[in-house]
Amino acid sequence: MKKDLRTMDHLMYMEYYTGRNAGIFMKIKKMLHSYQSPYQRIDIFEHPDFGKVFALDGITMMTEVDEFMYHEMLVHVPLFVHPEPRRVLIIGGGDGGSLREALKHPSIEEAILCEIDPYVIEAAKKYLPTAVEMDNPKAKIVNENGAEFIKKYKDYFDAIIVDSTDPTAGEGGHLFTKEFYKNCFEALKEDGVFSAETEDPFYDKGWVAIAYNRISSAFPISKLYTGFMTTYPSGLWTYVFASKKYHPIDDFDPSRVQNFDHQLKYYNEDIHKACFVLPNFIKELINE
Amino acid sequence: MKKDLRTMDHLMYMEYYTGRNAGIFMKIKKMLHSYQSPYQRIDIFEHPDFGKVFALDGITMMTEVDEFMYHEMLVHVPLFVHPEPRRVLIIGGGDGGSLREALKHPSIEEAILCEIDPYVIEAAKKYLPTAVEMDNPKAKIVNENGAEFIKKYKDYFDAIIVDSTDPTAGEGGHLFTKEFYKNCFEALKEDGVFSAETEDPFYDKGWVAIAYNRISSAFPISKLYTGFMTTYPSGLWTYVFASKKYHPIDDFDPSRVQNFDHQLKYYNEDIHKACFVLPNFIKELINE
Repeated sequence: MKKDLRTMDHLMYMEYYTGRNAGIFMKIKKMLHSYQSPYQRIDIFEHPDFGKVFALDGITMMTEVDEFMYHEMLVHVPLFVHPEPRRVLIIGGGDGGSLREALKHPSIEEAILCEIDPYVIEAAKKYLPTAVEMDNPKAKIVNENGAEFIKKYKDYFDAIIVDSTDPTAGEGGHLFTKEFYKNCFEALKEDGVFSAETEDPFYDKGWVAIAYNRISSAFPISKLYTGFMTTYPSGLWTYVFASKKYHPIDDFDPSRVQNFDHQLKYYNEDIHKACFVLPNFIKELINE
Repeated sequence: MKKDLRTMDHLMYMEYYTGRNAGIFMKIKKMLHSYQSPYQRIDIFEHPDFGKVFALDGITMMTEVDEFMYHEMLVHVPLFVHPEPRRVLIIGGGDGGSLREALKHPSIEEAILCEIDPYVIEAAKKYLPTAVEMDNPKAKIVNENGAEFIKKYKDYFDAIIVDSTDPTAGEGGHLFTKEFYKNCFEALKEDGVFSAETEDPFYDKGWVAIAYNRISSAFPISKLYTGFMTTYPSGLWTYVFASKKYHPIDDFDPSRVQNFDHQLKYYNEDIHKACFVLPNFIKELINE
């Protein structure tokens, strides 16, 4: 039998954490896809322990075994604060993990996934198990620049979830501007909720504070929260919840989580509250 | 001027996470110390961003910039539950970070650091800023096997802190046995408290459950808690608090933290409670 030449035990994936002389390495069991799209370098490979690994411009977006940590925390925190989210917009999130989590909420009627790069969608559908809900009739996938797409909507969405890549990579930078956050505010209904990934506060501490301050300037309510994300730089990931009306803890009803039909792997009603408790060094970073 | 040949920009430190085909890499700016003691390989180097990095058997024990996360969570959780800890025993912890944190508590009269390897103490004193309290008159350093040393004491300590290396490395295995935890119980006074590092639940999930179950079999009260530790495998570290009498939350008085004389970088009174809230996948690991 002919040897599968794509099976390469001698290859290694190495992510250099931005400007940090350090990073993570992972053995490549099988290279599945490696493509330079007009926007970014897309790599998908099989790891002996982590399953499929997906990277953009050499930055790990997800591994099959731990993507739940990131996607559950990014999506369920806002969607369990809003009492009945019907229309949700996910910006970025081309692997489909955030879409999958959002569609677990039975009230969702329309979920738009706005991923700039059609080649990411194509690769995700072919290789990534997270893409499982992309053909759901409630889902609509558009390939546009999220920072432009958002301008088309006013007073429309119940929730907006920003699942971007790093501000320093690919097209991520557009999704970290003051103007973009302001446009998200405008596109939300009067009781709309918002969440965004806002980087790690150890290797990339500058961006956490910048993103938090910019979001805070656009929304009356904004709170930083954290979660473990084991294959992202530092394992400590931050997110910002923001909203026009609902407070993430005072307006949170834990019984909705207890009665949820889906078994989640990370998020629960106690995590919802605990994730807003910040270590001192993160409080200092955002002057809280 | 003669070039310092220990300055080696081309050298890399690579920690392979146990059995995981992945790990962390860090550039070595300057190799400071690399020595094979009778117990383990001791490496200390300077990193361009992390300052001093200390490894045993190729496993990162600390970096200068993030060791506070680990040491504060390991030490302050038990010492703020006990109302007046006077005698504390630290087992392992040869870098001195746990000793430094323990001595911030003004009630401490005697702090014994039992580190098996005298070469670790010697190297720490020479190279590591964490060793700052090793000459404090309240501190006593002994170089003995912790699992043997503990047998000499009955009903003596207010707190025991197990700051071991990994169970699979160096001499760490002794400090993960049922018998050892039972002897810790015996060495504590009737209201004694205990904490131990119990590995990460992502790369090393087996050990988290084993350590938690063994500690639970020795103590009437035991609770797993988590903390970020950015340069340890996965960034998600677990600890177990155990005690004869005090409940870690019900018997915790936050005013003692508020009135503490030292500015901590991670731990605060809200973190004390939030750290016991576990993501679902960790609860499952320990059948909670």
